[in-house]
Amino acid sequence: MQIYRYPLLNSWPEITKRPSADFLEKIETVSKVMSKIRSEGDAAIRKFTKQFDHADIEDFKVSETEINEAINRIEPSLKNAILIAAQNIDTFHVAQKFSSRVIETMPGVKCWQKALPIERVGLYIPGGSAPLFSTVLMLGIPAMIAGCHNVILCTPPDKKGNIHPAILYAASVCHITEIYKIGGMQAIGAMAYGSETVPKVDKIFGPGNSWVTAAKQFVANGDCAIDMPAGPSEVAVMADETANPAFVAADLLSQAEHGPDSQVILITTQEHLIKEVIKIMGKQLKELPRSEIAAKALENSRAILVKDVEEMIGLMNYYAPEHLIIATKDAGELAERITNAGSVFIGNYTPESAGDYASGTNHTLPTNGWAKSFSGIGLDSFCKKITFQHITKEGFRLLGPVIEEMAQAEQLFAHKNAATLRMK
Amino acid sequence: MQIYRYPLLNSWPEITKRPSADFLEKIETVSKVMSKIRSEGDAAIRKFTKQFDHADIEDFKVSETEINEAINRIEPSLKNAILIAAQNIDTFHVAQKFSSRVIETMPGVKCWQKALPIERVGLYIPGGSAPLFSTVLMLGIPAMIAGCHNVILCTPPDKKGNIHPAILYAASVCHITEIYKIGGMQAIGAMAYGSETVPKVDKIFGPGNSWVTAAKQFVANGDCAIDMPAGPSEVAVMADETANPAFVAADLLSQAEHGPDSQVILITTQEHLIKEVIKIMGKQLKELPRSEIAAKALENSRAILVKDVEEMIGLMNYYAPEHLIIATKDAGELAERITNAGSVFIGNYTPESAGDYASGTNHTLPTNGWAKSFSGIGLDSFCKKITFQHITKEGFRLLGPVIEEMAQAEQLFAHKNAATLRMK
Repeated sequence: MQIYRYPLLNSWPEITKRPSADFLEKIETVSKVMSKIRSEGDAAIRKFTKQFDHADIEDFKVSETEINEAINRIEPSLKNAILIAAQNIDTFHVAQKFSSRVIETMPGVKCWQKALPIERVGLYIPGGSAPLFSTVLMLGIPAMIAGCHNVILCTPPDKKGNIHPAILYAASVCHITEIYKIGGMQAIGAMAYGSETVPKVDKIFGPGNSWVTAAKQFVANGDCAIDMPAGPSEVAVMADETANPAFVAADLLSQAEHGPDSQVILITTQEHLIKEVIKIMGKQLKELPRSEIAAKALENSRAILVKDVEEMIGLMNYYAPEHLIIATKDAGELAERITNAGSVFIGNYTPESAGDYASGTNHTLPTNGWAKSFSGIGLDSFCKKITFQHITKEGFRLLGPVIEEMAQAEQLFAHKNAATLRMK
Repeated sequence: MQIYRYPLLNSWPEITKRPSADFLEKIETVSKVMSKIRSEGDAAIRKFTKQFDHADIEDFKVSETEINEAINRIEPSLKNAILIAAQNIDTFHVAQKFSSRVIETMPGVKCWQKALPIERVGLYIPGGSAPLFSTVLMLGIPAMIAGCHNVILCTPPDKKGNIHPAILYAASVCHITEIYKIGGMQAIGAMAYGSETVPKVDKIFGPGNSWVTAAKQFVANGDCAIDMPAGPSEVAVMADETANPAFVAADLLSQAEHGPDSQVILITTQEHLIKEVIKIMGKQLKELPRSEIAAKALENSRAILVKDVEEMIGLMNYYAPEHLIIATKDAGELAERITNAGSVFIGNYTPESAGDYASGTNHTLPTNGWAKSFSGIGLDSFCKKITFQHITKEGFRLLGPVIEEMAQAEQLFAHKNAATLRMK
């Protein structure tokens, strides 16, 4: 962990730096893979699955039997935990439903918005070292609440062509039955363009490695909407003398274990806290199966000592972390002053892992400083809002002259004429 | 206008085709321009302004004197029209304010969302043949309501280095004072990366030609958020025997006059309406100053005769038009069945030009079929939502075991430990 003591304002860009994006380097490869999938469909997907995932898959679609077998294999205690988490996620996302309201902007001029589900959505769930079934809940539940008509899920198979049963169980909780054993770039291509087996979708959601991210960015340039630009996961902890060093250490490590490129930042007014946290992290690290990954992530991580709360808040809003844990005595008040963050965890008993799994908030959040302009995933992400308007003949008498005047000044005379004709 | 009589389902992809996107063809040029702006700042912007806009600009920033002079030059009748439109836009967008609500998903587990303004936003207003001051209102008013701290505006100067006074007046109505005489790709680069004169922003909004669009897509890949992917403007009209052919003709022409690549589609159950509309368009066209542009757009436009209302609705939702005018006897009911469109105009007295200028709805809308997954611009576009959560010690006793169980199954033991420690 790199330690910065009382950094000056001009060092903020440096100490909040993320690993650089490399979309442009990958665009050529991604472009070739996408174009193959577009022209050859299933055959190309099959070829890339063999090449990248070392799995020989004849039929990508997970069968009903496979799903049922998976459901039977999950321990009741895990089922129970998943169901509690699902209930909380459902409660929080149902509360986000949009209620339409007709606004009469002028007499006879009625305008309103209506939220409608995005009809066809595709969820990508990474495989690799950990079976991220929690992400299935985080994407599948809001898709279900929104009422998306077609929800499909792609996830890479292991070398034997299997999907982790917990992923299949979580999908069944979200009523997702169309699941495909496809990972990486080829999954993104399959969902963006469609193939003989995989239906084309309107929007793709979900995390992934840098190739998946590059493929998502590629298709977003003209072919398919995506949830948000993604980068390695991050946590920042703001702590004062009331913070519990063991809790802080555990929270930092739980971010660090995600991957060697994870970002972990501790900002505090307490020099001794930095020392204690680092010491405890060393101990906790030894007991982790993923200690190598976490240790690697810690190398690029930072502990920053600042002079006061003002600076702590300022630096946090400048950094715009994906996750922000506030472990200070006035955590609730400080939270009020946060303007850039994906998700904020207030107080000593609110670890990031609560939001990662079970409290109800979504864990798909903007990384890499995108929290300055993007929201995390919510019900909104699975809907689009359409505006409607209805104007009466009388209403148009009021509005028509305004349209005529403005259209004339913009030199758009057909626009003007559309108004003039209706006032005759 | 191309006429299709009773097209079969398998011809829908063909008859709803848009001009193809060409981002990849432009990426090399755009990449070079962006990299120059990034490294050389104002000097590069100055060079490109000379090269592309043929204007020699020393100081990009519009002075207070220029703004005041512009305000004085605008006719009172136009000022009045702009103020009425601004009031309606304000009314409709203020009503979109998000109210935060705390949700207790489990006893002691409180979660909520809060909408916060995107702090720094950049508005791009195209110049060229028409001074689109209405777009200033459509972007500037929601930015003002959202409470964005820094709102800047870029718009290309004419060859003498001037900005149209109506653009400056509309900006003043939205309290925008930071206005730069920069157009095209160089404006997007300036706002995405910042320069000595132009501050970097977090999100760029606004329409533009295909180069502006390509530059926006380029910066969206890692450097700056953008409003939405853009394409040529479109209108579709659904009409039955109750439609007024002259109104329909005027509405189609008001889209066609936007540009030679505009898309205009008429879908109707009435064969004679197609004939009449085409005849009347011919007459109206002659009186338009932009008749050449409109005629060109009409060449690629379509009139489609369908057998019934079901097919009309089906084809519309498949096409997902930016603007949809419904001129039928049961327009209100049909509108209820629209699931893919940017903005819907219901009935004979609700022309698209009402929403383009003055009814209150936003005119920045998804084109090119993006209405399937994107909303038009609204107050949301200028905000991001942050989630917050607070868990009590008692609440954590309920939630902790769920987190432990799930983290263990995902093999993320540091996540599990963050829960275990808090339950001791």
